[in-house]
Amino acid sequence: MKELFKDRPETRDLQQGYSTLLVIPKHCEKRLEGVLADTLAHPGSLTRAKLAYKVLHKNFETRDAALPMSIAIEYFHTASLLLDDLPCMDDAYTRRGQTCPHRIYGEAACILGALAFINRAYALVWQAMAGLPQTRSKPAAALLEHCLGAAGVINGQSMDVHFREGQKDEESVAAIARGKTVTLIRLTLVVPALMVGASAQEVALLDKLSLHWGSAYQLLDDFKDVLGDVTSAKTSGRDFELQRPNMVLCVGLNTSWQRLDTHFSKCEAVLTSLAELPRDWSFLTALQQHLLDERTRLQSLSQAA
Amino acid sequence: MKELFKDRPETRDLQQGYSTLLVIPKHCEKRLEGVLADTLAHPGSLTRAKLAYKVLHKNFETRDAALPMSIAIEYFHTASLLLDDLPCMDDAYTRRGQTCPHRIYGEAACILGALAFINRAYALVWQAMAGLPQTRSKPAAALLEHCLGAAGVINGQSMDVHFREGQKDEESVAAIARGKTVTLIRLTLVVPALMVGASAQEVALLDKLSLHWGSAYQLLDDFKDVLGDVTSAKTSGRDFELQRPNMVLCVGLNTSWQRLDTHFSKCEAVLTSLAELPRDWSFLTALQQHLLDERTRLQSLSQAA
Repeated sequence: MKELFKDRPETRDLQQGYSTLLVIPKHCEKRLEGVLADTLAHPGSLTRAKLAYKVLHKNFETRDAALPMSIAIEYFHTASLLLDDLPCMDDAYTRRGQTCPHRIYGEAACILGALAFINRAYALVWQAMAGLPQTRSKPAAALLEHCLGAAGVINGQSMDVHFREGQKDEESVAAIARGKTVTLIRLTLVVPALMVGASAQEVALLDKLSLHWGSAYQLLDDFKDVLGDVTSAKTSGRDFELQRPNMVLCVGLNTSWQRLDTHFSKCEAVLTSLAELPRDWSFLTALQQHLLDERTRLQSLSQAA
Repeated sequence: MKELFKDRPETRDLQQGYSTLLVIPKHCEKRLEGVLADTLAHPGSLTRAKLAYKVLHKNFETRDAALPMSIAIEYFHTASLLLDDLPCMDDAYTRRGQTCPHRIYGEAACILGALAFINRAYALVWQAMAGLPQTRSKPAAALLEHCLGAAGVINGQSMDVHFREGQKDEESVAAIARGKTVTLIRLTLVVPALMVGASAQEVALLDKLSLHWGSAYQLLDDFKDVLGDVTSAKTSGRDFELQRPNMVLCVGLNTSWQRLDTHFSKCEAVLTSLAELPRDWSFLTALQQHLLDERTRLQSLSQAA
């Protein structure tokens, strides 16, 4: 993701924003404080924040909203990671190169820490949208609610966690990727696009991009688990062990590489269409390049194995 | 709580609102659906919704906001109960006379169900506050964030769950009641009061009322646990077993009855002051009476034991 922000000051702003926009209160209970402090100290790649920031900061009316909104999206993502790693979900050991907080501070502190990030994120969204005309804030808030609600990531995560109990076919695995990864990319791209007053055509293209990027991103993640990639942010080899949804396990390596290429070419077509529009969406090509580089790296790993 | 709404249509509106303002999506994962459906079917006493509704519905500018805002507060409360009952927190068996959802549908579905209520609640708050002048919505939203955030109920719950690890004195038990029960009553009374443009004097009185009602409410709850009251909404006798904070266990029955009387007389003084103001706060006396009746009932139970 280095390419997404060659201009380092913006990256620093986001890193600083991530670490400071949630303030640990005085007299905070020690275990909760531990979860919050450790999590704030490891912002990860901030990919979602960087994308949302690029959309919002280019537009005069949303420039002040760019930082709080971008960090809010990242905090929602952070909360989802804290919860996904719990014993009753992924039962993970490590995250962002660190021991998962629930293994240090306990599950209760981790759930409460996730809620603290969620509460702060909604407040930041509120702050970011308060100055916008209702014609923009209303559809943006409605999409945000949809993405984060019972019909969005929550249902996606529930299908994911309870995968072993249901259909284990390709369509189910794809539906889970749509419910989780695709939805979080829609939140990152389309909600900010609505905030800057993007046209119906732009929204449709970004929706399509979210679908194919999200599906590609999830496929790369599935490859990482199967190939035992040490750069993975989470514990590897768990999907087979825990009967978790994994497209590569479901349809095999060869078909998965083909699926990945199909998603990439659909993304390419969307990026070409976006390049013909008046608004500048060229920064999106950096993420496409990053994902293509990941594919190349994982293919080498696959051939070496 | 019967007295709080002699006019049954309003109670029916709130019961219906509780059951319908969160819509279970099509294609909902089965365990998540189970948690949501069972929870929506048992709204409990709706005390918080009734109080908030009374504040908001009396005021022309917030009449349309009364239902969504009241249900939002109840949904936040519902989410807190779903999470508090988990094995890593209270490890409860029953709630509202039913088996706790995590014992039927599992912990993951229960955590995700709680998130669905929280997401919907923030959306309803957004809807309720959208039409208000910023001079009202800003302080109301700020207090809501404070009450629900890392400095509010989240820290209170973390102190509660990790009580056995820290100081087990009277002040710690009181601090936990302030962090949880008092904060949720502030959310219920003071946030709606700010939405209707209450004066600084009204806000100060309602803050004081929240402190003493919340403390009294928690004491009554602690009595219920110790006396093994079968009407309790949660499993009895667990506080001693799990070394949970309980003022009655901490300072004994006699001192607790005295503390309770002190809180009730301070509430009485606040209600007298509120009665002298132009705005009609008389509906609040119904909750005071309800709590006094609970005291009488529990005292009989105590003497019979």
